[in-house]
Amino acid sequence: MDFEPYIRDIKDFPKPGVTFKDITPLLKNATALQKAANALVGFIGNTKIDKVVGVDSRGFIFAPMLAEKLGAGFVTVRKSGKLPYTTISESYDLEYGKGVLEIHADAIEEGDKVLVHDDVLATGGTAEAVCKLVEKLGGEVVQCNFLIELSFLKGGDKLNGYPVKALLRY
Amino acid sequence: MDFEPYIRDIKDFPKPGVTFKDITPLLKNATALQKAANALVGFIGNTKIDKVVGVDSRGFIFAPMLAEKLGAGFVTVRKSGKLPYTTISESYDLEYGKGVLEIHADAIEEGDKVLVHDDVLATGGTAEAVCKLVEKLGGEVVQCNFLIELSFLKGGDKLNGYPVKALLRY
Repeated sequence: MDFEPYIRDIKDFPKPGVTFKDITPLLKNATALQKAANALVGFIGNTKIDKVVGVDSRGFIFAPMLAEKLGAGFVTVRKSGKLPYTTISESYDLEYGKGVLEIHADAIEEGDKVLVHDDVLATGGTAEAVCKLVEKLGGEVVQCNFLIELSFLKGGDKLNGYPVKALLRY
Repeated sequence: MDFEPYIRDIKDFPKPGVTFKDITPLLKNATALQKAANALVGFIGNTKIDKVVGVDSRGFIFAPMLAEKLGAGFVTVRKSGKLPYTTISESYDLEYGKGVLEIHADAIEEGDKVLVHDDVLATGGTAEAVCKLVEKLGGEVVQCNFLIELSFLKGGDKLNGYPVKALLRY
């Protein structure tokens, strides 16, 4: 299936000069939603996955679906202060300053095979921080997959060493 | 399946005197995740659903999975300023002041049968606002379902007229 017709360009969002890739037309189409989920699962092949990690908040849309289809658990990574239990944290670069991402300390078990998912790979700072959190807890990142990779931002360079897959590349 | 052992009480979160129901132990358990998704789908029976609406951000965890299983599209409701395209909005009461929720104006078609999903039904203000947004766009709310209903907060009273289902009630 060609998913590109279901991605809408929004000019000057969230700020002037940026063109935002809006995935909501894909999500609201039942067929495109199912086929996108199955294509993301297909990226894994026959590898056994123990946990799928999704990043707050648009990473939550597909990551639990992938977990459910792969027979894996789903783990959330959230911005600082959102997770209620004991966490470990990792900072990452934002355009101005730094952000902090957290994961529950009991979310991953030593040796877990982990799929990291987010909707868009842009500069790669978020996904890199997520991979570090997984590894701090003893997990092994098997793949990072995305609906969309904005290749011109070279986020893949930050994820050197991890297999990176995306349904759509710009 | 008894889901209660997978819900963790966190005392004094997010503030003193509140006990937070942490669903992450359920999410990270592959079997509990699958069975919870299937139980939520089971609440719908044979009713045809066109769209499942999920509320940012924990509503995003199960709502797309339910959409995918039901052969429906998934629609997001988000806090003000997050959605990139033309929106309509609805305000709702917070503990202090008001919040604003938005939905894309093209998210629902006239006559769509809609399932509204969120993780927790508390005072019901959020879910009520979501139902109003769906109806403003011409959709019909067929059911509101939740992982958890905090019955003592009487949120169900605000959703009078809609069938309300929950996996766990406290």
